[in-house]
Amino acid sequence: MEADNAKIFELLGKDQFAKNSNMRLIEAGLGSAIAEMEIDQRHLNGLGSVQGGVLFTLADFVCAAASNSQGKVAVSLDASISFVKAISKGKLTAVASEIYLRRTVAAYKVEIRNEENDLIAVFQSTSYRKEPKQ
Amino acid sequence: MEADNAKIFELLGKDQFAKNSNMRLIEAGLGSAIAEMEIDQRHLNGLGSVQGGVLFTLADFVCAAASNSQGKVAVSLDASISFVKAISKGKLTAVASEIYLRRTVAAYKVEIRNEENDLIAVFQSTSYRKEPKQ
Amino acid sequence: MEADNAKIFELLGKDQFAKNSNMRLIEAGLGSAIAEMEIDQRHLNGLGSVQGGVLFTLADFVCAAASNSQGKVAVSLDASISFVKAISKGKLTAVASEIYLRRTVAAYKVEIRNEENDLIAVFQSTSYRKEPKQ
Amino acid sequence: MEADNAKIFELLGKDQFAKNSNMRLIEAGLGSAIAEMEIDQRHLNGLGSVQGGVLFTLADFVCAAASNSQGKVAVSLDASISFVKAISKGKLTAVASEIYLRRTVAAYKVEIRNEENDLIAVFQSTSYRKEPKQ
Repeated sequence: MEADNAKIFELLGKDQFAKNSNMRLIEAGLGSAIAEMEIDQRHLNGLGSVQGGVLFTLADFVCAAASNSQGKVAVSLDASISFVKAISKGKLTAVASEIYLRRTVAAYKVEIRNEENDLIAVFQSTSYRKEPKQ
Repeated sequence: MEADNAKIFELLGKDQFAKNSNMRLIEAGLGSAIAEMEIDQRHLNGLGSVQGGVLFTLADFVCAAASNSQGKVAVSLDASISFVKAISKGKLTAVASEIYLRRTVAAYKVEIRNEENDLIAVFQSTSYRKEPKQ
Repeated sequence: MEADNAKIFELLGKDQFAKNSNMRLIEAGLGSAIAEMEIDQRHLNGLGSVQGGVLFTLADFVCAAASNSQGKVAVSLDASISFVKAISKGKLTAVASEIYLRRTVAAYKVEIRNEENDLIAVFQSTSYRKEPKQ
Repeated sequence: MEADNAKIFELLGKDQFAKNSNMRLIEAGLGSAIAEMEIDQRHLNGLGSVQGGVLFTLADFVCAAASNSQGKVAVSLDASISFVKAISKGKLTAVASEIYLRRTVAAYKVEIRNEENDLIAVFQSTSYRKEPKQ
């Protein structure tokens, strides 16, 4: 089975929150995906660093691309994120990969890095895979 | 000690990502805070539900108000969120409370509910409390 | 529907790891449960405190009682724990309650307290609920 | 700086809970460690699988070896674990590696695999690094 890339790009292209946050999907394969964003003023918190919610959103977005590539609609049950390094400018790249895939659940991890390849955040999420409606 | 509310509201008022996401701080006390937002088109993912990153951002925002109320600058080390119920419209209220407060670390939990008081998401975060610069 | 308590006590009574760790189930209801243990030498780590794995095991044990009370076999998908206070003696009580219950997934939280009612650890877990075999 | 291995093996050798659970430290370096265990009857839950607390304890144990190798006493603030595959026999190997190391906090991840190199669980933890007493 190959990932239906057009479908994944269409689904993620309708994500208004990611779009308004300047995030874009770059690649999507079976259980994997890459997304990126340029940091700008809109992403900063009161301390001048990228808000934790920005990093989580980028991770959740690329994770949704990876998890929805496996032939069923997948929704996140829970997620955890660890903030490795504060950052305030530059480009961020998020790479999602699959930890496991079962019939109705799956798990993914995401690493977010900057242009110097420094690790900025690590994310992990468990997804529920919906049975297609009859 | 009382929370210096003006300072908290000023700090959180400078959070561009929360502001652009239509989130506002309503109350802040020592180790606690309340924030809210109205769901609109900008918050929806490709499936038409509120994006997980929106819920995380709201939780992180109200958590920052609670954690920064205790006299030191606090930054999140890690956080986890559990998505209880998908939602696509209405008003969300997030309430942060303190799990523990130590000299250099603290932990907070956040519950997000809709207008019917349904639980939408639960969030938990550990913060690092910076020593003031000499 | 009432929880089939005899069945829950039987299932949890067969948990060798909890039994060898001196943990016992006290109560089990629909989506809730209480367990306890006396701390002794076998539970301590190299620093003389209760090992994190002891607290996790107690939480996981009481969570299994709560999650298996709802008529299906439930297994944990993931869990997170926050260590609130180091402890080295006395009795610990763990209380599990349900965050949500859906057809195939559910989530639970657990609070562990000592005899002085100090919070020792908080735990949260998402469970997968197996369909009964035909 | 090299890890003071004798000190790490001594500290972890005093972990009664890990010892009683048949876990042993195999290697310890700066920010990394390997531990292993043979599954036996004492590790099984009521469903006949290795109890989640066993996997967490093994991960926490090897993580403590890695985090205490960096010259300060380190204690876990929080941890999350994802259960990838149920298992009931054989040997488990846990490998800990460092995600980041700062002056007073650090984070580690652990992968647990069986003899066939199947991933059994993934674990992540944030540690607090105590200042040495003056």
